[in-house]
Amino acid sequence: MKRKIYMAAGANTISMGTGRKEFNPRKERPGLEHYISTAGQASLAQISNPELIDEVYVGNFMAGRFNRQGHLGGFAATINPTLEYKPSMRVEGACGSGGLALISAIRSVLSETSSVALALGVEVQNTVKAIYGADILATAGWSKKRKEGHAYFFPGQFSDRAGVYYEKYGYDYARKGMGRWFRNAIDNARLDPTAQEYHNDTADLEEAYHQAVPNGKFFVDHLNFFDCSKVSDGASAILVTSEEGLAQLGISKKDAVEVVGFAQLTRNITNDPPNPVEMTTVGKAAAKALEDAGITIDQVGTAEVHDCFSIAGILTVEALGLAAQGEGAAWVAEGNTARDGKLPINTTGGLIGWGHPTGATGVHQAVTIWQQLTGKAGAAQVSLNPERPYGLTINMGGDDVTVVAIVYKRAD
Amino acid sequence: MKRKIYMAAGANTISMGTGRKEFNPRKERPGLEHYISTAGQASLAQISNPELIDEVYVGNFMAGRFNRQGHLGGFAATINPTLEYKPSMRVEGACGSGGLALISAIRSVLSETSSVALALGVEVQNTVKAIYGADILATAGWSKKRKEGHAYFFPGQFSDRAGVYYEKYGYDYARKGMGRWFRNAIDNARLDPTAQEYHNDTADLEEAYHQAVPNGKFFVDHLNFFDCSKVSDGASAILVTSEEGLAQLGISKKDAVEVVGFAQLTRNITNDPPNPVEMTTVGKAAAKALEDAGITIDQVGTAEVHDCFSIAGILTVEALGLAAQGEGAAWVAEGNTARDGKLPINTTGGLIGWGHPTGATGVHQAVTIWQQLTGKAGAAQVSLNPERPYGLTINMGGDDVTVVAIVYKRAD
Repeated sequence: MKRKIYMAAGANTISMGTGRKEFNPRKERPGLEHYISTAGQASLAQISNPELIDEVYVGNFMAGRFNRQGHLGGFAATINPTLEYKPSMRVEGACGSGGLALISAIRSVLSETSSVALALGVEVQNTVKAIYGADILATAGWSKKRKEGHAYFFPGQFSDRAGVYYEKYGYDYARKGMGRWFRNAIDNARLDPTAQEYHNDTADLEEAYHQAVPNGKFFVDHLNFFDCSKVSDGASAILVTSEEGLAQLGISKKDAVEVVGFAQLTRNITNDPPNPVEMTTVGKAAAKALEDAGITIDQVGTAEVHDCFSIAGILTVEALGLAAQGEGAAWVAEGNTARDGKLPINTTGGLIGWGHPTGATGVHQAVTIWQQLTGKAGAAQVSLNPERPYGLTINMGGDDVTVVAIVYKRAD
Repeated sequence: MKRKIYMAAGANTISMGTGRKEFNPRKERPGLEHYISTAGQASLAQISNPELIDEVYVGNFMAGRFNRQGHLGGFAATINPTLEYKPSMRVEGACGSGGLALISAIRSVLSETSSVALALGVEVQNTVKAIYGADILATAGWSKKRKEGHAYFFPGQFSDRAGVYYEKYGYDYARKGMGRWFRNAIDNARLDPTAQEYHNDTADLEEAYHQAVPNGKFFVDHLNFFDCSKVSDGASAILVTSEEGLAQLGISKKDAVEVVGFAQLTRNITNDPPNPVEMTTVGKAAAKALEDAGITIDQVGTAEVHDCFSIAGILTVEALGLAAQGEGAAWVAEGNTARDGKLPINTTGGLIGWGHPTGATGVHQAVTIWQQLTGKAGAAQVSLNPERPYGLTINMGGDDVTVVAIVYKRAD
């Protein structure tokens, strides 16, 4: 990195949707405007000089259809009037939009056109029924390819991946790892009051997972409901700063993380994934970000990965080189990714436990890593192995199409 | 600018829609994919080493609804396989999306994470009838405010501005300037084979403009059809490079423009414009970009401005300080913005003449300025006053909400 980059003052709204006690699908709920201003203001409440914010990036996937609203950059000044007449734009790469907001803010601070940028992600999805929502989310893939596909296009893509994985490595073997993935997600979510599964009180999560076969059928061919991330309303925000920016904000380095490497890669959306049991772009992006940081995966103490489906979690473990191909399910089943495991992953629940407000997810991942590395994670705090001082986030758009990987370390 | 930034190898598709002889609303037409690859490949055809392109920014407003397609960054590698596994993202700020693609590419090259970035804008809007299209374009404004508004929300916003202008400065006076604006737009479009109004053969354009009152009624309260920009399918692309990047591409400086200043500003979308007869954000952004370049408007030899409606053109002339408030209509009526005038504006037709493929427009403006400053504008070429060597683009999203202003000069 040619200039030191930091992140601080992270904040999340609740991830709202089924699972939260407050959620009532028949009652009117807060809209996009509420989530943008709530997350933004919760970040700005941690600083005394919001006028130092030079610009805003808003990650959002599809407010144009969920909320009939484009042009989300225009809402920046609803967070704080000091943002009026400053640069603000929306960036989009499907479910990787939040990661793109972070990357854009990082590049802008590196360009020295900005010292402090607010990166915010938002999605409000409970405005439509699930089947219409699935149709909207399907725009993350190539529309022309979709015509002959599943009604639930995206679950279908990852169901196909799971089917090949089962065939290649064994159904019971794979499901054991995926069930453990689900259990970890809910266990972690129960420790974060903003998580969508915070109120989940199921006694035996793995048993519940394996019995989730209503009428003898899965939700899609090879995945049940518990294999899927949530339909969520939520927003997350964090400040991205230069070293001078951090000092001017009066934020102590112990309250910040340093960004020490990053990568952003996109594969051709019109092609099928090169290998159904490999997250190829995730693997390339993670390797590039780790190389950029000059570290190996063995130095990462906690990671947030994009488990839109449990199978994506297993395949990402393999793509990161934590386990060989086909051995990710065992590595997860053995508890290596649990909060007391070798490498705690998705410590506030990830997309399956915390929730998946699509355009916000990438920013939420950064907020969790910032919380963990600075000791601000509350009940969800994990104790980091001092030999593994780095954090890693992997945010993905589409079926392994757009991937943003960022490497962090505690700043002081 | 802390690092020299250049643009080169610009390209446009045809702006397709009503007015073009090839356009038949009842026949199937090329989609988004065609426009992205055609514009991108036309830019890349001007270099011999596309592998030097580090990343791609795609400006697009609302493919999610016009084309049921999100995640446009995923199409980069359909332009050229060398773009596979490189960074690519979509940026959006309504009709200012193309300008945001340029700004993002500029910031990225300034950050030194990239030496050559491809900025591409695209929109394919003729997929739906005009009234549904108007509903989609209305997402550029605040959806909550719109409920009580015009069916044609955006034309309505600028119609309201025109109504106040008529009342304050006189109807006939204002319409004279607006009619001349229309005449210039079509005159210029007739000289550019890619322009949507290229085939327009109306003999007396100003007379046609003033008589365009079908059944004694305007299209919206204070504007007729000729006051409005076109519904267009199109894409534009241009390379944004560092000095080293330009040299590595083998592009001579005489074939490039240098970016010498820029500004990006956004006002609160939930507020009405502070003054209905003022383009406040446009004025602020232009002043900031000119200041960044260290020049005044009197040194600008040609400009591309965002005439989504003729009244926006008149008000922009005032916002740029070319005429005092209320005197823009006279300044235009006197021919100062015509191709042989004091400051030729929209020399390939602008949004009213060339066309307005919304997410592409900002990039198209840069391509026109690049053509004019490097002598590549063909029949549309204007002769530049040597005392005014600079070019200026003003791209706007929403009703004066997001504005991108860029100042250019010939590189050699």
